[in-house]
Amino acid sequence: MGRRAGGLVARHVETLSAYVPGEQPKARGVVKLNTNENPYPPSPECAKVLKGFSLDRLRRYPDPVFAELRAELARIAGARPECVFVGNGSDEILSIAARTFVEDDGAIASLDPSYSLYKTLAAIRNVKWVGPKGGNPSLFLLTNPNAPTGEFREPEDVAAFAKSFPGVVIVDEAYADFARANCLALASAPRNRNVVVMRTFSKSYSLAGLRVGWCVGPKPLIDAMYKVKDSYNVDAVAQAVALAAARDQGWMRANTARIVKTRRRLSDALSSRGWDVIPSEANFVFAKPPPRARAADLFARLKAKNIFVRYFPGPKTGDRLRITIGTDAQTRKLLAALDEFVPPARA
Amino acid sequence: MGRRAGGLVARHVETLSAYVPGEQPKARGVVKLNTNENPYPPSPECAKVLKGFSLDRLRRYPDPVFAELRAELARIAGARPECVFVGNGSDEILSIAARTFVEDDGAIASLDPSYSLYKTLAAIRNVKWVGPKGGNPSLFLLTNPNAPTGEFREPEDVAAFAKSFPGVVIVDEAYADFARANCLALASAPRNRNVVVMRTFSKSYSLAGLRVGWCVGPKPLIDAMYKVKDSYNVDAVAQAVALAAARDQGWMRANTARIVKTRRRLSDALSSRGWDVIPSEANFVFAKPPPRARAADLFARLKAKNIFVRYFPGPKTGDRLRITIGTDAQTRKLLAALDEFVPPARA
Repeated sequence: MGRRAGGLVARHVETLSAYVPGEQPKARGVVKLNTNENPYPPSPECAKVLKGFSLDRLRRYPDPVFAELRAELARIAGARPECVFVGNGSDEILSIAARTFVEDDGAIASLDPSYSLYKTLAAIRNVKWVGPKGGNPSLFLLTNPNAPTGEFREPEDVAAFAKSFPGVVIVDEAYADFARANCLALASAPRNRNVVVMRTFSKSYSLAGLRVGWCVGPKPLIDAMYKVKDSYNVDAVAQAVALAAARDQGWMRANTARIVKTRRRLSDALSSRGWDVIPSEANFVFAKPPPRARAADLFARLKAKNIFVRYFPGPKTGDRLRITIGTDAQTRKLLAALDEFVPPARA
Repeated sequence: MGRRAGGLVARHVETLSAYVPGEQPKARGVVKLNTNENPYPPSPECAKVLKGFSLDRLRRYPDPVFAELRAELARIAGARPECVFVGNGSDEILSIAARTFVEDDGAIASLDPSYSLYKTLAAIRNVKWVGPKGGNPSLFLLTNPNAPTGEFREPEDVAAFAKSFPGVVIVDEAYADFARANCLALASAPRNRNVVVMRTFSKSYSLAGLRVGWCVGPKPLIDAMYKVKDSYNVDAVAQAVALAAARDQGWMRANTARIVKTRRRLSDALSSRGWDVIPSEANFVFAKPPPRARAADLFARLKAKNIFVRYFPGPKTGDRLRITIGTDAQTRKLLAALDEFVPPARA
């Protein structure tokens, strides 16, 4: 270790295994159900913003505190604008939180299994990662609905957990627009001390390519995040396009409603084929094939047919596939392939 | 300390004074010479990219390794694509470098005075900042041409310095396109061990609003930065617009040539009025008014006239103004205002 870069790289970075995001295949005709992207396009208002974008706005630095976007998000969250923070994707917010709410000798906690980035995040921050019951963490990353399971935790349970937790709880609500409830009211409550709720434009707003995440929480915590962020962390185009998307709630709601319907159809279809499907409140399902099939094999065979789903090896996740909810047509293709690989058992 | 956020914020963040970027006044008719923006618009090719941008590309995650953009930048730098890294502005590259090349008990060095963000960066990283001769730093941030002075250091001097420095040297060449030479050849030389050269689209390419910075250096160092970055740190629009700008070198060269001419005119005009102007190789000048005027007063009086320049208080900088090179028309307005505030001395 430390050899390759001749001791120029910090030790904890040398020993680090980078986070591996889901594949982004470039071939045409791929059924892409592996990175929880929305199968429907973003609001047409986003295209209008791009078409009319003034080059003079690109010439100048963007608003460092994204005032217009922040005000709109505050309205959505029922919070004061000063309690809203925006990042270059939720990823940046998580990275900033790891630097803002964790001492150099601290620890970060999350559910297990959960979003696999969290462990890498702790390693990059050079602090310990601990599971839900371990160590002495000052930051808890609570994905709700959880990934990759899709499980939903009721807001009152999140509130009770946060009350008992001595540090900051970030409720990562990347998938909340697909769920029956959420924790925004908790984050914007005047008596809230330690709960930050995080959202993204990547999933429900169909803007994964734009990299805009946001969060809402107690002003002292949000103020501290502003101190740690880069001066101009959200570019002018991203601010304007996200604003247009946020203002078109109807478009987002219609798409999420379609996805929730397809989620029901896919869950039922898999269950009827003997799969164990964890009830999901997200835009994916985490499902275990019947005993005569193995998740890792199916992953590889689907991929060979240009159908991409996600497989996480390991004792807690390796017996399941995480399948993003696509269009109904994509779902039919997936099921047809599965019927070929795992012929229905004889009654 | 630690009171406001009830001990939830890391101690070094509680005590931190945030970096204060230059003002972004919203009024019309402002002569804005305070944040080193380019007075000319970016390449019209950028507008074409925005107009035709596919919403489907926004729906999907962007290329995590910005392959097309990286290949074009590698071509410009005479380097291999694997030796090029792209960030959400140079600011993000600096923040990633501070986490990649500095241990938790390490130190970051820079010239003094230099880009004032560097000290804040060290404070956010919770390590010491030291001047050019102090401590035991593992990362040296060498701005060339320097800011706010505009002074240029010859590439062979940078090479000699880097040879003697035991850690990583980032040559921040934000202003290099306005200078007579640069260090790109140093960074892409096969025997280079520790020099990373950093560039930005914010200044010479007129794309401050877009947030795209890049750097080139030895593969082991660049590899380490890829490990530390967020998965998708440069959005799809930014990748595409920056690529269009990079391909239109003629547009950038024509604008920088105009700015260099105006820099000469402004420098001469100030000198002839008794100002001490440090010879600048950047898109700004750092100039001391004649003894009968004070920099802080002039800054305030110019601002009252809607002419924004930059003033950095402090023993090493407080007797000068940093003035961005604008258009010739803006330069005439500035000089007219100065002639009003500081009437020419009688011969």
